[in-house]
Amino acid sequence: MSLELEKATHSLLPAIEVALRDIVKDSVHDEYAGMLPLLSYHLGWEGEGSGSEAQGKRIRPLLVLLCAASTGIDWHLALPAAAAVELLHNFSLIHDDIQDQSKLRRGRPTVWVKWGVPLAINAGDLLFTLAQSSILKMCETVSPQVGLLSAEKLNHTCIKLTGGQHLDLIYEQQPDVTLEAYWPMIEGKTAALLDCCATLGGLAGQVDEKRLNAFSEFGRKLGLAFQVLDDWLGIWGDAALIGKSNASDLLSGKKTLPVLFGLERKGQFFHRWMEGPIRPNEVQDLARLLSEEGAQEYTHSLADSLTAEALQALSKAAAEPNKASLALSQLAKQLLSRDQ
Amino acid sequence: MSLELEKATHSLLPAIEVALRDIVKDSVHDEYAGMLPLLSYHLGWEGEGSGSEAQGKRIRPLLVLLCAASTGIDWHLALPAAAAVELLHNFSLIHDDIQDQSKLRRGRPTVWVKWGVPLAINAGDLLFTLAQSSILKMCETVSPQVGLLSAEKLNHTCIKLTGGQHLDLIYEQQPDVTLEAYWPMIEGKTAALLDCCATLGGLAGQVDEKRLNAFSEFGRKLGLAFQVLDDWLGIWGDAALIGKSNASDLLSGKKTLPVLFGLERKGQFFHRWMEGPIRPNEVQDLARLLSEEGAQEYTHSLADSLTAEALQALSKAAAEPNKASLALSQLAKQLLSRDQ
Repeated sequence: MSLELEKATHSLLPAIEVALRDIVKDSVHDEYAGMLPLLSYHLGWEGEGSGSEAQGKRIRPLLVLLCAASTGIDWHLALPAAAAVELLHNFSLIHDDIQDQSKLRRGRPTVWVKWGVPLAINAGDLLFTLAQSSILKMCETVSPQVGLLSAEKLNHTCIKLTGGQHLDLIYEQQPDVTLEAYWPMIEGKTAALLDCCATLGGLAGQVDEKRLNAFSEFGRKLGLAFQVLDDWLGIWGDAALIGKSNASDLLSGKKTLPVLFGLERKGQFFHRWMEGPIRPNEVQDLARLLSEEGAQEYTHSLADSLTAEALQALSKAAAEPNKASLALSQLAKQLLSRDQ
Repeated sequence: MSLELEKATHSLLPAIEVALRDIVKDSVHDEYAGMLPLLSYHLGWEGEGSGSEAQGKRIRPLLVLLCAASTGIDWHLALPAAAAVELLHNFSLIHDDIQDQSKLRRGRPTVWVKWGVPLAINAGDLLFTLAQSSILKMCETVSPQVGLLSAEKLNHTCIKLTGGQHLDLIYEQQPDVTLEAYWPMIEGKTAALLDCCATLGGLAGQVDEKRLNAFSEFGRKLGLAFQVLDDWLGIWGDAALIGKSNASDLLSGKKTLPVLFGLERKGQFFHRWMEGPIRPNEVQDLARLLSEEGAQEYTHSLADSLTAEALQALSKAAAEPNKASLALSQLAKQLLSRDQ
């Protein structure tokens, strides 16, 4: 990890955990305290396998705080927004895991596996509520106006999140998804929340509209680049090519960007795909075939240009370079350079 | 229906529908418009069986608007709050129906039956988001301060809603629920949202703290009375006693107030209950047994006193009697006098 980012996360991460714990503890108690174990488990604080691995990387709240700090303000003021995005992210993970019937999350049984679907839906609803409570606290730390704008941004983001999730669920059952249809899905599922994080940081710093748009663009492009790269790794990453433990998106049949590119070619890959599920012993050949049909270059160059656009937007957003903006660009580069 | 209430609903109900349609239409469009049919179906606007029956009575938004009007303000100002509580209520219904595996809602197939559980969870999440968007519009119609207080009230309510739902789901699997444990469940599941409705009306009217507390108390007691009465009807109501189509709570095994009262007696009813599910031909005898053990009188007198307390609180909340406060007390009485 690069130096400025390491120094920053060293102080930010503990503060994020405290903010999360405070909002959970202050909101859920007495007769309703029975819901706490579900939240504490999912957030990685309690239960078997708890700890930093189970908590995830807290990328989204880090993004909020670093964006806020890059504007020159004390990042503590943005903690309610940081907690809000992490709570929102975790709400969507609990519901996603039910929708996808995923049994593991960060190496541990998912909430619905441990407590059943009904209580898990309810725990997700509660996390959503806590995200909403938390964002409104920006009214106190910065100003009522900033708090309101932040809450509105969060709500617009939630609409996009559900929109993207709806499309994802629909596409799963649809054989004929176009490459064009891919974008609103990942705009909603991945880019909207990172856009929200960066924008909330800018709002906390009360930057002008032009810089606020640049923060939004930075988060959004970062999210798109991240997802496109994730799709690339899902087929040509080391784990995917070895074909172990369903690591390849070709095995799960996910309609990722390279797959949709290949399907539109209507070539050999398309014909094989249409014949039915792909077997583990076909993964390497089909990944090579997709490459030959141009999907790898297309995906990789898209990830590259989106990354460049994200960093370009960041330089406009964080007007004067400082430690936080340096850490931010390091965070972005780190996110976008997972072992390819 | 009493005259003032009839006159009031005649103008309020269409305005509520317009407000609901506007927030849905303005928020969900373009690439995410695929979610609209689920919302429009659940809200009773579209699909087989749509219409006023499918829309429900819109009691909660009526309560918001009448409480607001009773303070002397133009009720139009409270429309965003009215839409918010109805959206929140409907979000919780969609998720409840999944959790309870209920196949029918207001006589029509539930959203999860028509679209599957994953898309239904997501549609519920979207309605929750729209409720949050809607309540913030009180910042524009009344003031930022009122909007913020309204949003905070809504969030506290959501925490109680999830808390009550959690307890309900837990109690289902628990043989040994006490009478005492009943109250936090219905406080959360039923009373919290009616409390919220009345309080939001008071907030819109910017009444002083004392009257605001009276509005809250009115809604809460109304909710408790309503639920206790519902529990009474579930065993001694006409439909329940006839025993047709699972109308009796004794058949479904629900742990309602009279049942919990009977279980605490540890008498004949308790012993029969512990032996296993109750059969249709036992319903009338067991209802009589519960009566003999005092459960009917206990439940009925509780409903009566809660009703009296609700109306008492209303008289404190609506300081000067006017058409709206008259309609409100008529609404309360109507809610609490379903054919016994």
